[in-house]
Formats: sequence, C-alpha cells, structure tokens
Amino acid sequence: MKKVSNFFIFFLCTHFALAQPLELIHQVNPFIGTGGHGHTYPGATLPFGMVQLSPDTGIEGWDWSSGYHYSDASIMGFSHTHLSGTGLGDLGDVLLMPTIGEVKVVAGDKDQPDQGYRSRFSHDNENAHPGYYQVFLDDYQINAELTATLRTGVHRYTFPQSNESNIIIDLKHGIRDKATKASLEVQGSNRIVGYRKSTGWADLQSVYFVIEFSKPFEKFGTAIDDHFFWGVNNPRNGHVGTANVKGAVRFSTQKNEQITVKVGISPVSIDNAIENLNAEAKGKTFDQVKGRAERLWEDQLSKLTVTGNSDEAKIFYSAVYHSMLAPNVNSDVNGQYIGPKDQQQQVKDQPYFSTFSLWDTYRATHPLFNLVEPKASSEMINSMLMHYQQWGYLPIWSLWGQETHVMIGNHAISVIAEAFQKDIPGIDWKLAYEAVKASSSMDHYHSPFSLIDQYGYVPNDYRENVSITLEIAYNDWCVAQMAKAMGHQQDYEYFIKRSKSYENIYDHEVGFVRSKNRKGEWRENFDPEALTRIGDFTEGNAYQYSWFVPHDVKGLQSMVGGASQMETKLDALFQTERTDAGSVADVTGFIGQYAHGNEPSHHIAYLYNTVGAYDKTQRYLNQICNTMYRNAPDGLSGNEDCGQMSSWYVFSALGFYPVNPAEGLYYLGVPRFNQATVKLPNGKTFEVISDKKDADDFYVKRVSLNGKVLDRLYLTHQEVSEGGVLEFKMCKKPKKSAYKEMAMFQ
Amino acid sequence: MKKVSNFFIFFLCTHFALAQPLELIHQVNPFIGTGGHGHTYPGATLPFGMVQLSPDTGIEGWDWSSGYHYSDASIMGFSHTHLSGTGLGDLGDVLLMPTIGEVKVVAGDKDQPDQGYRSRFSHDNENAHPGYYQVFLDDYQINAELTATLRTGVHRYTFPQSNESNIIIDLKHGIRDKATKASLEVQGSNRIVGYRKSTGWADLQSVYFVIEFSKPFEKFGTAIDDHFFWGVNNPRNGHVGTANVKGAVRFSTQKNEQITVKVGISPVSIDNAIENLNAEAKGKTFDQVKGRAERLWEDQLSKLTVTGNSDEAKIFYSAVYHSMLAPNVNSDVNGQYIGPKDQQQQVKDQPYFSTFSLWDTYRATHPLFNLVEPKASSEMINSMLMHYQQWGYLPIWSLWGQETHVMIGNHAISVIAEAFQKDIPGIDWKLAYEAVKASSSMDHYHSPFSLIDQYGYVPNDYRENVSITLEIAYNDWCVAQMAKAMGHQQDYEYFIKRSKSYENIYDHEVGFVRSKNRKGEWRENFDPEALTRIGDFTEGNAYQYSWFVPHDVKGLQSMVGGASQMETKLDALFQTERTDAGSVADVTGFIGQYAHGNEPSHHIAYLYNTVGAYDKTQRYLNQICNTMYRNAPDGLSGNEDCGQMSSWYVFSALGFYPVNPAEGLYYLGVPRFNQATVKLPNGKTFEVISDKKDADDFYVKRVSLNGKVLDRLYLTHQEVSEGGVLEFKMCKKPKKSAYKEMAMFQ
Repeated sequence: MKKVSNFFIFFLCTHFALAQPLELIHQVNPFIGTGGHGHTYPGATLPFGMVQLSPDTGIEGWDWSSGYHYSDASIMGFSHTHLSGTGLGDLGDVLLMPTIGEVKVVAGDKDQPDQGYRSRFSHDNENAHPGYYQVFLDDYQINAELTATLRTGVHRYTFPQSNESNIIIDLKHGIRDKATKASLEVQGSNRIVGYRKSTGWADLQSVYFVIEFSKPFEKFGTAIDDHFFWGVNNPRNGHVGTANVKGAVRFSTQKNEQITVKVGISPVSIDNAIENLNAEAKGKTFDQVKGRAERLWEDQLSKLTVTGNSDEAKIFYSAVYHSMLAPNVNSDVNGQYIGPKDQQQQVKDQPYFSTFSLWDTYRATHPLFNLVEPKASSEMINSMLMHYQQWGYLPIWSLWGQETHVMIGNHAISVIAEAFQKDIPGIDWKLAYEAVKASSSMDHYHSPFSLIDQYGYVPNDYRENVSITLEIAYNDWCVAQMAKAMGHQQDYEYFIKRSKSYENIYDHEVGFVRSKNRKGEWRENFDPEALTRIGDFTEGNAYQYSWFVPHDVKGLQSMVGGASQMETKLDALFQTERTDAGSVADVTGFIGQYAHGNEPSHHIAYLYNTVGAYDKTQRYLNQICNTMYRNAPDGLSGNEDCGQMSSWYVFSALGFYPVNPAEGLYYLGVPRFNQATVKLPNGKTFEVISDKKDADDFYVKRVSLNGKVLDRLYLTHQEVSEGGVLEFKMCKKPKKSAYKEMAMFQ
Repeated sequence: MKKVSNFFIFFLCTHFALAQPLELIHQVNPFIGTGGHGHTYPGATLPFGMVQLSPDTGIEGWDWSSGYHYSDASIMGFSHTHLSGTGLGDLGDVLLMPTIGEVKVVAGDKDQPDQGYRSRFSHDNENAHPGYYQVFLDDYQINAELTATLRTGVHRYTFPQSNESNIIIDLKHGIRDKATKASLEVQGSNRIVGYRKSTGWADLQSVYFVIEFSKPFEKFGTAIDDHFFWGVNNPRNGHVGTANVKGAVRFSTQKNEQITVKVGISPVSIDNAIENLNAEAKGKTFDQVKGRAERLWEDQLSKLTVTGNSDEAKIFYSAVYHSMLAPNVNSDVNGQYIGPKDQQQQVKDQPYFSTFSLWDTYRATHPLFNLVEPKASSEMINSMLMHYQQWGYLPIWSLWGQETHVMIGNHAISVIAEAFQKDIPGIDWKLAYEAVKASSSMDHYHSPFSLIDQYGYVPNDYRENVSITLEIAYNDWCVAQMAKAMGHQQDYEYFIKRSKSYENIYDHEVGFVRSKNRKGEWRENFDPEALTRIGDFTEGNAYQYSWFVPHDVKGLQSMVGGASQMETKLDALFQTERTDAGSVADVTGFIGQYAHGNEPSHHIAYLYNTVGAYDKTQRYLNQICNTMYRNAPDGLSGNEDCGQMSSWYVFSALGFYPVNPAEGLYYLGVPRFNQATVKLPNGKTFEVISDKKDADDFYVKRVSLNGKVLDRLYLTHQEVSEGGVLEFKMCKKPKKSAYKEMAMFQ
C-alpha cells in the first residue's frame, strides 16, 4: 500500500509540475533584436547556458555577429554557441544541417542557396519561445526543432520519406571566426566525437563535442577542404583532422520520421562533452528536455512580472529574457574549465562563468542580477576573481574563458564594488579587494595607470584617452568606497583623488571633456560632435562622454557651472541636431546627440533629476521607451550587448535606474505599467503601481513608498530589496510643484 | 702524480678535440638558395634540430617561405624556427631583435626601416657557416651572432655604449602564419617565459619558450596590439596574453659589451622549454655552444666528401648540408611531444621527428639517409609509425607534429618499403606493414582508393586525378613488394594489380597520360604542356607526369611503344620549347618541358639508360648540374624542398641515383669529381673515382666496380653499402660502343 501511495504522490507531483501553466514564456518574443542592429539570436538556450542552439543565416558582417539576421531568407544550419547582441562576432561552433539528396559540404551563397546545403525558409513557418525554436526547411521539407540543456543541444528533425536523408556536420563553419583545427571521429553507428579549435574574437577557442543520433546512421562520410567522401567500405574513414573538416551521416527515413540528435559540448575534452551529455540529457526525449527548459524560463521570468499581455508587456518580458542569456557557464558538469592562460582549472560548488561584456552590463544587467539573482551574481563575481588569480587582473571582456581586452576601463571593479555595497553573500571580500586594487594599480592594456599618475589624465598619444580617463575615474571611485569601508584609508585617499581626474580633461572654455597632450595642450580642431570608435573617445563623442561622471554628479554639476547651466547643457545634448560629423556603427538610436543605441548615454536622461528638471527625465524616458523599444525584429535601437540594452529597459519600465550602480541608489524615472512586481530572493516582493491611464500620462505627480510620499528623487537598494510598494501618481502635464519639493541629493 | 697525469690526459684530449681542423664546414655556403626561389635560410641549426635560429627579412610572399631573401637590405630580427626550402611558409616563432633607443614594437616596412625596429645591413658584414651566423646591424651598430643546440637558440649581441640598449621580443611575428594567442611573463630580472600559438600551414602550432639573459635587464615592458608600456613600477606588468603580444627588455651597455641570450623552446610546455635549455645549454658560453655545433656539422659533412675546394666542391658540401636540415626533432629532452591529434605523447630512446616533406624527400633525401644515416632513418620511420598509430594513416606532409595534407600520394610508404628492402635495423616490420597497408586502403584526403577500385583510376571530378593515380600506383608497388616478401600473397596480388593503374590513364592516341571522367571519356581540349598546380596534374603537366612510372619502367617502355619510341618521347620532353601554356611558381628550371626546379622531373634524365641512350643521360645530367646548381644565393633552380633538390645533386654528383628508391637500385649517371668518398655506417667507404680532366669530359667510356668492368647501367644498394671503388673512365664524345655492351634491366 505504501509503495502505491508513494508512486501516486510522485505521479501527482509530476503531473502537477507538468500542469503548471506556462504563460510568461509565451510573452517573450526571441526575435526582438534579430533585425536592425540588435544582433540577438532566436534559438534555444537556458538562462546563462553554455549551449545556445540557434539557426545561422550568415557568418560574415557586423549584423551577423550572432549568426542570424531577420532579413535573410535561407538558413545554413544550427550551431551550438552564440553571442547575444554583441558588436563583434564569434562562436557558431559545430553546425548541423539536415538535408535530402546529394551531400553538399558548403553552405552556399544566400543568392544561390541551391548550390550549397542552405535551405530557404519562411518566417511564417518559424516559431520560437524561451528554450525552443522551430523552423520548416522548404528546400528539404524537413521540420527542425531545437531545445537545450545547460551544456547539450537537442535537435529533432522530422524528415520526409527518403533514402537520402542526411545530417551535415560543418566544423569549418563559425561566426566571424576561423577554424584552425578540427577533428571528426566516428564511434559506432550512432555517435560521432570531435573538436573544433578556432581563432576569432576569442584568440583561442576549443569546443569538444559528442553527437548522438537516436537512430543508427547507414553511412558516414567526411570532407577535408570540401572534398567529400562516403566512408562506405571503411569504418576507419571516421577520423579526419585539419582546419577545414566537414562530415555527413545518412539515413533512410519514412515519411514524418523523427530523428533526435543530442550534442554535448565542452571547452575541455571529448570525455567531458560525453559526461555533460550523459548528466543532462541521457535517456531524455526531446519533449522532456524542452519541457524542462520551458519550466526553467517560466520560473526565471516570474521574478519580474507586469500586468497585461500588450506589446509593451511582451517587450518587457523579452527584455527580462535577453537580460538572462549572458554571462555563460563555461565549466563542465565535473567542474573543469579552461582558464584565461589556456590551462585546465577546476571549480567547486559553482559553475565558472565567462562571456562578461562588462563595459555594457555593469550598468544595469549586473544590478538586475543583484536584485533578483544574488546567488548567480556571487558566482559570477567568484568567476571574475578566479580570472584575476590566474591572469593578474580582473576580466575586461572575457569570452569562452579568454580575455579579449575589448572595450575600456575595468568594470568588473564596479560590479564587485556594487555587490559589496549591496552585501551580496558568498564572496571573499578580502580577495575581492585585493583584485580591485591590483586591477587598478597594475598597468595593463587600456589601463595606463602610470600615465594617469604622471599627468592626471591619459595623454592623447594613447588612443581612447578621454574615455579611458573618465571610466577609470569611475572605477577608482568604486575602489575608494571599498577601501574606505574596509579600513584601507591610504588606499581610499589615493583612489578618491584619482577618481577626480575627470576634472583634468574638462575644458571650461568649450564646456566639454577634451583630449590633451602630455604638455597639457588641448588637441586642436575640437568638434564635440565628432564620433570615434577608437579615437580620443570610445564609441562616442564629447557630447556624450562629458556626462560620464556617474560617481560624482555633484562635482560634475559644479564643474559645468551649476544646476541651471547643467540643465542647459543637457538640453543641448538632446536637442542639438546631428550634422555630418562621422558615424560609428555602434553608436545609434539618436535623440539629438544622445545615442541610446550605445551604452555611454544610458544614464544621462536620469541626470535631469539632479538639476530639478524631473519632468525632462520623464519626457525623455517616455520618448526613449516609446521609440527605441518595439515588439519587432528591429525593435532595438542598437546592439543588445549581452543584456544591457534590455536591462536598461527593465529598470526604466519599473520606474527606477542605477545611474551609479556601486552607489546603491536608484534614480526615479517613470513606470511603464500600472502594476509590476519584483520577486525578491528573500521571498518578499517589491511592487510598483501607477495610475497611468493612457500613453500621455507620463509625467509624475507624486511618488509614495509604502504609503509615504517621497520627498526625494531616488530609492535606496535597501528599500527595494526589503520589499514594499512604490506608487506613482501620474499626470499629463509636468507638475512643476512636484519636483520643487523633491531633492535628488541627500 | 697520477692525478696530474689524468688531468694532463684530459687536457690533451680536450685540446686535441678543439684542435681538430674544421675544414668542411667552411666549404658550405648556407646562402645558396636564399636568393631566387630556393627558399632556404642562412641561420644556425644542428642536423635535424628543433631550433633553426635565423634572421628574418620578410614574412609575407612566396619567396619569404623561410623568412629570408637575399635581395632584402634590412633584418627584422632573429626567430627560432624555420623551414628549409619549402613552397609554403610557416614558423618564424619567437623573434628577438636588439635595438638602441626608443622601443618600437613593429618591424616596419622594408622601404622605411626607420619606422620600425628593423635594421639595415650589408651582405659584406654578414657571414654564415653550419651552426653559426653573424651580421652587423647598421642602424644600431650592434653585432649579432647566432648559434644553436638541438632545442636552444643562443644569441650574442655586441652593443655600443648606450643607456637605451633594448632587446625586442615579438610574438606576433611569424612567417606566413597568424599568431592566435601568445603570452609573456617575466620571472625575476633575467628570465622571461611564455608561449606562442598560431595557425598557418600547420593548423595549430604551439611554441613554449624560456629566454635567459646573461645580464639582468633594468626594465621590462609589454605591448598588446602594439601599445607599448614599460612596466617600470610594477613587476606584475610581466604578464600579458592575447593574439598580438610583444615585449622589450632594456639594458645599459658599455662599448662592445656582449649580452648572451639563450632561448629554449618546446612544443609541449614552458617547463619543458626550461628543461631543454638546462640540459643543452646551461652554463655554456656562446663559444662553447658554437664549437659543439661546428664539430657536429664537421662530423656530419665528413660522411660525404669530395676532392678539392672548387665552387663545385662548395656546391656539393652545401648540398650535403641542406640534405640534413629536415626532418626535425619535435620531442623534448624528456621525450614528450604533441601528436597529430593535439595530445601529449611520450617517446622512448629516440626523438620524435616531424616536418616530413615526403612528396619531395622520398626520392633522394631518404635514400641518402639510408646510405649514411641508417639510425636516423629508422628513428624517422618509427616517428612515422607513431603518427600512423595516433592518426590512422602515415604522414603525408607533417609539420611541427601536425598533418597538413599538403601534396599527394603517401610517400612514407616508399620510405618504409625502401628501408625494408635495404634492411634498415630498428624497425618493427609487422607494424610497418600494417601501416603501409592501412594507409593504402583507408580512403583519405588525396587518396580516394575506393574510386580507384571502382574505376581503375581517379576520375577527373577529383582534382589532381592524373597525378594521384600515378603516384598511388607507385606507392602500391611499394606495398606489394613488402607484402610479397612478408608472405601476404593476397595483398601482393591486390596491390601489384593496382600498381598497374597508370596504364588506364595513358592515351595511346596522343601518347600522354591524360585525365578521364567516370564514363571513361578523356577530358577535352587536351594540351600536354598545360601546367597546373592543382588541376588534373599536381605542379606539373602531361609531358612531365607521363614519366611517373618509376616502379615499372619496362611496362612504361612497352606502353609507349618500345625503346626507340620512348627515346623519341624523352627527346621531345627535353627539346620541345615551352609556349604560353601557363606557369606554376613551383615548376621552374626548364630544359624544354623538363622542369628540374620541381620534383616530378627528377628521375627522368636517368630513364635514357633504359633505352640504350646512356649518352643522353650523361649529357642532360651534365647540363642540369652545370646550369641548375651554382655557388650563389640564387644557385638553385627551384625550391630546395627540405633537402630533395640538394640530395638529387649529392647522388648525381657521386654518379648514381635511386630512380625507384624502394627497388634498391641506383641508375648510373656521371660523376662530377675525380674522387668522392661515402663514409658508410659499417666503417667502410664507398669511393667513386673518375679520370675526368676537364669540363668536357662528361661522357662515360667505361665503368668498373672494384676493378671489374660493369656490363650494366646500375648498382645495387648492397654493392654500395658493402663499400668498394667505383671507377669511371671518361671521354669527350659519346662512346656508342660502351652502352651497346651494357644493359639497364637485369
């Protein structure tokens, strides 16, 4: 009787779990950002997963940084790793493509898909939601479905009747990435193992894999340098290795016969790839893997919810989804990973995370993790500390375990100082302080501290000097805060002084930050509009970077001549029309000189709060949300950037934003929904409600926290994380009286 | 008294060893082949050494495959690995360059050497002999000297007085090779360690290194992506890693102060690089290392000696020198190496050899090793067998342990069958047979055996089909000989039949081998002159490849219509003037359609022996030796090809040549010297003497072996290896009566 009872309870639980409604995942539109310059991918992944199994439509060109662009009409196949929204391309490892007929081992051009293994498809026959992607391949009449575990991609192909049903394996394929060595080896009749080593954005990347087919293949063939041969008579034809390796397996299929293919991957070894697959996907059907992926995403999305199922709600949930794709687990189930010095390492009790787009994500994505995902946040920071211990300084832009040195500053410092300020548990703060101090002392690429010590700024024979001076000043403020709190007074004084170095490159005469040489002379022919990607500025101009003093907005205000002068200058930013002063691909989404499509602008609209012009914060936030975020493939105004573009929206839609993440304050903005709920890790909720009636209700009349009217324009992280209700009273016209009573600064 | 005596004996021995005259090394001109298209390097190395420490003057372009071209007037620096005479470029790892003044981290253009660290130099101030290279760097007034052990490069720089004496370390630098990841780390004040990983001709190459300076440096700086910084205040600045890593150390030097730099390298690890350096060079002065290198080369050169010190003798000794540069030791002193599947392996009691240019060297270089270096030969073959065991088939063109699949056929089979025929000791013949059979059965890149089995030839939808059919037919004959001798009768029958497949692509109508499709139809628009590098032919045309039946010259003769018809066709080869039928860089050194600058022609002049036209063999050999080999930088008629171009000369100058190496016969040619001695491994000598009086004495009147007049046009390997005297009586006019009495075929 007991046994039956236990079984019954088990059945009930299982059934109950399966019966939980999956609502939120269907509010997510993974295609947002796959058009325009969003650079997102629509495929299947888990939150922070190692595998991103997604269709590739192109592998060259800026807008194919994630391998897929909505404007394409044919698919090359499905590869297992993708970046979300980056401005550089990489990954796209281990492409599989089901085909019918003669084996072709090159994808073929978009213009002539017939000449390769590409297949045309229609967006009408393509669907995706978190953890699942499906497309019908017109040229082969094959339905392809994808899902994933953390380290295993699972494909289900529904074939037509054919004696020539193939699955192509292309190891040359990679996104803006060159395969340097690959290997394919057959093991029996339903398993292939191998590896792909490549160089691209990540200098050196290894992906080991195992491919398991649900049905034995009839034959296996390989191609080196695109010479294809069936290994009909010889099982040992199974092994090939060189830079350009491809293979194919063949099946006879009945009409609508489904073949499931599981692909385990590992950065360490073939054995680990097998172990990963076995631990995560062995014995599971496609539907079971899919069901688990959907459930994990549903749980994840439930942490940040809003009312309704409008396009606005879909934008919100898609933004939450996009905020939780990166960084990525880069260690195997047994804890092994490859450290930045290309040596095997071992992690315990947590995964090793990589793919840190920190110049972007320190702004709002890590703050979002600290709000709803503190455990993941601490694991990410511990991963950064491991990187520091092996490498000598904290990660700048690490990708698949490798330091790429892309972008400037060292904003792991901000992420760590923020977590310290917010008291995130599970971090060795002594080690963390050692790491931020070392990363702020040891000259390294893009961080010429000895020059700043000597000149007070980075002189302009060093590229990106203005932006580097400003961003390091911010990082220095972060180090100073930790130093002060931990009793390192001498360090505090050193770093707080260096955090003021922004003042040394502000030209009072022109009213902008500006490039200076070693003699202290301004660079001639100054044009505040002139955009550069790696000139004196980093993906920006003087208009935008002059506001990069998030750690000392009072100092900034006084430097530019007081509140009134600052408001005038902010107005100039938003209102000065662009002339022909050059363009930079990454800098898009303009309102005047403000560029929402790139991160240096992200905090600026909130700065109006600091000069008593709260109404302008509200007006521009409303304009940015209305025009820069849409439920459409081209619905993002610029690169998604591993979550930052979306996390900005998540915070801004809630009604508050971390202008200086490490300060522990949120500047108030304007909520987009009548009701929004943040599910906090302590079990409580933080609710934001507004009485907004229509789209014109975007001015704030009054804000109350837990029933008490606020007389300030910010919230503390503690207030939010303790749970409560934030209530906005909205109106259609700027309520001058409101912000007179409210203050930004404490 | 006894002690004194011992010391005295020791002193005497040492002194005696030092006093041994070094004569032969000064007969070698390492600059032969550094001009024109020889692609040799002039730097310092040991026989078959892992390190080739040599100046680089350019790293792009075909004629810079070894990094140096005699036409250049400036030097970029001195890197540690180089290929000898190849048609593709690679290596050039770990460049060091001494400079004075401000640190520059790019080499700069040849046209504007001032803009980088390059220095101008003059060939008047440049000297080299085996194991030693010296050049004066005009721009810095630094004298640079190089020598080497097996795995360690040793530099000696003589500086002027300066407080800004630098040594630049460039890890981006590589010859036609892209650095994918590099690392530099300082350890104390006179040691730097790191690695350079790269992709080029070898898909994936790792070079780990340790650099030790004889004097502590004052500071150390690094550059990522060419931003250079002194790590003045921070010892931890020592570590950097990315694709583009450079560094510099600085010294203050007195006038004429010498700094010695030892660089140990390893394909496995930094620890191994250190172990290699310690085992080979620790505690040794530059002069001691140089002395040992010179002595080793002197011993090596003494194995093949000729009379006099004419230009002709210098050409001969330089050819012996160039024959013994490759293959190269690729295992560390502890026996560790990286196998073709990128996994660490261990060798015992012998080194692991790589850099097998087998398509070239099976012809005359390996036969030369079998004659004077059987121990090295067996170690090379054992290395090929290790490659087979790890990879599945024998090496085709292995470079730094990696299979590159360059060229066609699988001529390790010829090398092994030859060694078997010649009874070279130290080889597991059972394993060897397994390897040659597997490599002749398992379809692999450029070896589509299943197509040959199906059609009797490689059909012309497979590129290089004509050449592949012919070369595999030769390899098949080799396998068949081993099969027969080892009692594998069934295998023998299979392979001897397939060795006849050359007949299937001979078009009797046009009288040439020719490309055929799967239906058996000849490719249209046939032009026997049309040269292709990878068309139907491999670096050749129908004129040249129609003679590629070295294993069945009788069959070839009968196929083309008998001896007289064959002589007419050979005449046509040497006498048909070239028209505008295309050109291929590798195919040079023409006499009519004959191209001595590339290997497929190398045996053809000797084929006149088989049709009773011995005088034409002599005439063309005389012409080739006179015009295609000169004591000058552009003294080679084509790529040196890891020894083959030189080994052809060594044999031909001795007066005999292995047309089919695995047959164990040498075809008689015409000796270049009045006296030449082969020092055999059994302690005996094989002497070749001739009564040649002047340059016109190039026809052979009579040949005697050990005093007995020969009635045949060949020697057996046994006859040569047993030692003896081969005597040529020469004359100025073809001696018709001589070859009437002599026969080629047994």
